[in-house]
Amino acid sequence: MPAVRLPGGSTVELVTVDRPVPGHGQVLVRMRASSICGSDIRAIYREHLGHGAEAYQGVVAGHEPCGEVVALGPGTARLGVGDRVVVYHIAGCQQCEECRRGYPVGCTSPVRSAHGWQRDGGHADYLVAQEESCLVLPHPLTFVDGALISCGFGTAYEGLLRGRASGRDRLLVTGLGPVGLAAAMLARLLGVRTVIGMDVSAPRAGLARDLRLVDHVVTDEDALADVVEEVTGGEGCEVAIDCSGHPAAREAALRHTRRWGRLVLVGEGGGMRLDVSNQLIHRQISLHGSWVSSVQHMAELIELLVRTGEHPERIVTHRYPLAEAGEAYRTADAGASGKVCIVWED
Amino acid sequence: MPAVRLPGGSTVELVTVDRPVPGHGQVLVRMRASSICGSDIRAIYREHLGHGAEAYQGVVAGHEPCGEVVALGPGTARLGVGDRVVVYHIAGCQQCEECRRGYPVGCTSPVRSAHGWQRDGGHADYLVAQEESCLVLPHPLTFVDGALISCGFGTAYEGLLRGRASGRDRLLVTGLGPVGLAAAMLARLLGVRTVIGMDVSAPRAGLARDLRLVDHVVTDEDALADVVEEVTGGEGCEVAIDCSGHPAAREAALRHTRRWGRLVLVGEGGGMRLDVSNQLIHRQISLHGSWVSSVQHMAELIELLVRTGEHPERIVTHRYPLAEAGEAYRTADAGASGKVCIVWED
Amino acid sequence: MPAVRLPGGSTVELVTVDRPVPGHGQVLVRMRASSICGSDIRAIYREHLGHGAEAYQGVVAGHEPCGEVVALGPGTARLGVGDRVVVYHIAGCQQCEECRRGYPVGCTSPVRSAHGWQRDGGHADYLVAQEESCLVLPHPLTFVDGALISCGFGTAYEGLLRGRASGRDRLLVTGLGPVGLAAAMLARLLGVRTVIGMDVSAPRAGLARDLRLVDHVVTDEDALADVVEEVTGGEGCEVAIDCSGHPAAREAALRHTRRWGRLVLVGEGGGMRLDVSNQLIHRQISLHGSWVSSVQHMAELIELLVRTGEHPERIVTHRYPLAEAGEAYRTADAGASGKVCIVWED
Amino acid sequence: MPAVRLPGGSTVELVTVDRPVPGHGQVLVRMRASSICGSDIRAIYREHLGHGAEAYQGVVAGHEPCGEVVALGPGTARLGVGDRVVVYHIAGCQQCEECRRGYPVGCTSPVRSAHGWQRDGGHADYLVAQEESCLVLPHPLTFVDGALISCGFGTAYEGLLRGRASGRDRLLVTGLGPVGLAAAMLARLLGVRTVIGMDVSAPRAGLARDLRLVDHVVTDEDALADVVEEVTGGEGCEVAIDCSGHPAAREAALRHTRRWGRLVLVGEGGGMRLDVSNQLIHRQISLHGSWVSSVQHMAELIELLVRTGEHPERIVTHRYPLAEAGEAYRTADAGASGKVCIVWED
Repeated sequence: MPAVRLPGGSTVELVTVDRPVPGHGQVLVRMRASSICGSDIRAIYREHLGHGAEAYQGVVAGHEPCGEVVALGPGTARLGVGDRVVVYHIAGCQQCEECRRGYPVGCTSPVRSAHGWQRDGGHADYLVAQEESCLVLPHPLTFVDGALISCGFGTAYEGLLRGRASGRDRLLVTGLGPVGLAAAMLARLLGVRTVIGMDVSAPRAGLARDLRLVDHVVTDEDALADVVEEVTGGEGCEVAIDCSGHPAAREAALRHTRRWGRLVLVGEGGGMRLDVSNQLIHRQISLHGSWVSSVQHMAELIELLVRTGEHPERIVTHRYPLAEAGEAYRTADAGASGKVCIVWED
Repeated sequence: MPAVRLPGGSTVELVTVDRPVPGHGQVLVRMRASSICGSDIRAIYREHLGHGAEAYQGVVAGHEPCGEVVALGPGTARLGVGDRVVVYHIAGCQQCEECRRGYPVGCTSPVRSAHGWQRDGGHADYLVAQEESCLVLPHPLTFVDGALISCGFGTAYEGLLRGRASGRDRLLVTGLGPVGLAAAMLARLLGVRTVIGMDVSAPRAGLARDLRLVDHVVTDEDALADVVEEVTGGEGCEVAIDCSGHPAAREAALRHTRRWGRLVLVGEGGGMRLDVSNQLIHRQISLHGSWVSSVQHMAELIELLVRTGEHPERIVTHRYPLAEAGEAYRTADAGASGKVCIVWED
Repeated sequence: MPAVRLPGGSTVELVTVDRPVPGHGQVLVRMRASSICGSDIRAIYREHLGHGAEAYQGVVAGHEPCGEVVALGPGTARLGVGDRVVVYHIAGCQQCEECRRGYPVGCTSPVRSAHGWQRDGGHADYLVAQEESCLVLPHPLTFVDGALISCGFGTAYEGLLRGRASGRDRLLVTGLGPVGLAAAMLARLLGVRTVIGMDVSAPRAGLARDLRLVDHVVTDEDALADVVEEVTGGEGCEVAIDCSGHPAAREAALRHTRRWGRLVLVGEGGGMRLDVSNQLIHRQISLHGSWVSSVQHMAELIELLVRTGEHPERIVTHRYPLAEAGEAYRTADAGASGKVCIVWED
Repeated sequence: MPAVRLPGGSTVELVTVDRPVPGHGQVLVRMRASSICGSDIRAIYREHLGHGAEAYQGVVAGHEPCGEVVALGPGTARLGVGDRVVVYHIAGCQQCEECRRGYPVGCTSPVRSAHGWQRDGGHADYLVAQEESCLVLPHPLTFVDGALISCGFGTAYEGLLRGRASGRDRLLVTGLGPVGLAAAMLARLLGVRTVIGMDVSAPRAGLARDLRLVDHVVTDEDALADVVEEVTGGEGCEVAIDCSGHPAAREAALRHTRRWGRLVLVGEGGGMRLDVSNQLIHRQISLHGSWVSSVQHMAELIELLVRTGEHPERIVTHRYPLAEAGEAYRTADAGASGKVCIVWED
């Protein structure tokens, strides 16, 4: 079957591999949507710079897979052929502290492997997944919705939960790439009424506005200060979430977090400088690092999306067949789009 | 191999069964300790009254197993022969909401099965367990410690966590059977300095006092009121936990919970009447139902016991070899002992 | 000045009293709205049955006052003449544990006094309040909004916070009197999308529906079971709040609370029976008694209402001038209306 | 009466001022103990560098006062002559959001004033305090205990609560000045069994060890890494609290905080650099800025100290009469002592 590998150097390799066979406790998933995540670009496509959890092992790429179960390995217990499934992108040992907390992303066992990093991912016609990595995708949600949930939307949702975002809060989102757009969208579902977004990229800021995911959007810090002043009387937002990974954006997010507020850091890479007394202590602020969602929170997110009728795929701006994966990656790498997704049409 | 079944009518049946063979993802455990839980007595030994999770299916009894791994089935990932393991007593589907929260006790799948209820338990020389049900038992802890952790101590620990017990709190424990004794012991580890216990059984009250697990112990409600008056100036305890399952004890526990305090209900069976305005609303009190511990909290408990040098087996008053299981059950049924445990001596 | 006293026996007494003079740290408030609370009816109007916090001392009635500051006593620090203020209805000692937590309702000092119960309330042209009892009412909010906030909406908001209601949750409200209507309205502001209401009174159920405060509303338990089945697949609501004070309604609310959910008890009076194992323990449910809001949460509620443009006065169905207080109380006592408010027109 | 002012330039000025008279709602306190805080040294004694909350206004110094009520102003409600009181060191407006949360330290009103900064403090024979700033000091606690509670111990306690420290946790304390010693002492009361301390000052490290407030104490980062490796197997401590105010110590504290752990920042001044992905996101860590305690938490601390029989004054190494305040400040400024306290002997 056709598949995509990422040899580095910003290239995409189309290869042919054998259709995999599900082993014990595994299922065979016919792929229907496989989206591209910022970390695919940052840590794999441009160069293979990852270590540990981020070390790409030359496998079929794609860690946001969604499809339909077409075969069951022995010892499976709950799924059936025909089930539509979101594949949580990391399989852990299920026995370490992190797995038992529900966060296989942090699995400390050598058996830990992420689709698209250490085990074959979604950029192929078929994928083998652990049954326990699969979350049933109910019908109002599309396969593209499911692909987006499997990593990026899960990550955004987890971050918002870490920040305890609710209708009591106004939210500042710094960085309006796919994860930032997801945070803005999901914050609404949690009850947040006022969302302020910032991204230095005018197209991304414009996309957030056009999708009505933000109430106010700016492209620089001065404009941000003005908007925060206008909207909150200068107090700042009760919750801020950085999805940019940039020091300046994080520091701006902290400055505009309200006293007693929470700043959640989700965007990967780089650093941040704190002026501890003025920014944290005297303003009683908490900072939370939040990685990928727990499996259970992802399941809850699916339920919440069904209940509210929202669709993550609203942030998809580009769809490609697998054969055009190279173009898909070039588009995602340009950093001016919404989400980019490889799709299999019927 | 020899094994014990519980046919009901307060009888114990010693039978011979084949030594089981571990299947995929399973391990064979050579049993070293298998303790008796109050629910074995209440719901199985006396009569088979359970439904759902509590329906006994005629299997080898014993849902508090601890032993040593002696063989591995195919597909196991972390355990090795020679590992000493606590067996979390319920195997769930790992895919429903309850399992994903870490509480297989609440698993909603038909594949859910508890050792000693729906799958063979610890009252036999060998037991087959799911690898993911096994928690490694570090060396300072004994096999008897491990057996007690696998259900009762886990349950007590979960209840205390639900009540957020810490050094800020004084604790009232109603019901000083094994779970109540466990709650008293573990509360110390969480920092609670003052523990008041009540049990209508004088021997049990005496045991709690002799083991120094309580600072004050009483056998009736009048004496309880006096002690609470003396110790807390009548304010009540910040946290109370009922391990008795009796309405009167629960209601006494609620009366002696401090304003803004938490009452955790762990003891099974029966009811409770609330005078809502006076007891709950005007006193700003929360009531929490808490079942069995999560797998992760059980692992945390093991770590905490190692760190503090405490030993659950301190509450064991009676040990029997498997051949004397009948006597073990009669002792446990009498309700005047500490914990009763079946042990395999070297 | 004209004022209202409640001598009991379902009568209203119109009297003339001297205009009060603000003392140290007090302000004189020209009354503009003074609404009637369920507890005025239950504990004062019908008969004087209260003890402690609920003992009516023959003062000017009305514990939901809102108006405009027209004079300052010595030693006031923040308010100015012309400020529009919500009067938090209880003045505490500010030095006991309850006051320091922000809940003067629970003040344990003899100096504690509630407007309309132990100190003069809002059913008169002028009222003297402690400066610290006053919360500034920003302009988009009306005086009637403010009166409703001062007790009932505060109580509903506090209950929802106790239940941690957010967009993650569906809400069941039992009892659709003014506090229940408030809970339904404010739940939306916290992000709750699905609200199910139950009241045995068809007019009250109809009002909730007409005001679009509920998505589903029923008048009996069978219909409730059907709706919960339909809306939640039988799982129940993540959060339930009882505002009825009736045992049967509370028990229905508990039955329809989802596993791991929270039931908040706000409605006063009466009892409740629990089937502990089946309802609480095996379903991992928490019950919270919640009294009146903290002062700080009331301030937060005001801010939230301004931010969202919502108006509590939407639930007011009847307005009367002070001279018609008798009719106002008769209407409120009939139990079929929305909120009843005494107003002073310009 | 004799009093102390701090004109800056590391000098202490002994002056004579009139004995103050308590106004409305105020009490006159005969001083019995008045300790010196690190911020007195940092922000006042050396030079007057503070702004806002830290701007010293030439008043009688000393913001950790404790004594006996000897006269009541008009309008006081709860205190009586003879009451022993801890004076919470900041008087707020009681009406802003911060005051209503219970944190007058953050009061946003111009009327906010701290003893020893903007209103007369404890370095004089008598002090006038707001009645609501006074917390009754029960008898097992000494006046010196009370002085230490009024700022430093309160601050440490608040920080530990922010980090949710309990018996589940091991604690790392960086900076073993008086606040760090307080954190170590109070952590025990909350249930923490293992405390690791670090201070670059060997005398301070030695004091912590001699007082048995720490289980392990080191004076440099290499030794810290070794101890954390040995004690926690390299996982790090569940809770860390920085009381040093130094960037390197904070960064060491973060490195040695366990996955999912909490780092609380209490020490004032300076900055901190974060490596966001490696230190926060992938390790799921939260950082909390925490200022001074709430009034209610200070009251709770007093209760907890009484209950446990602990005495903050154990960390006092130097006591001086008021006349020797100059020597007291020189000792405190040297940074090698435990707590320094001005005392009035009977």
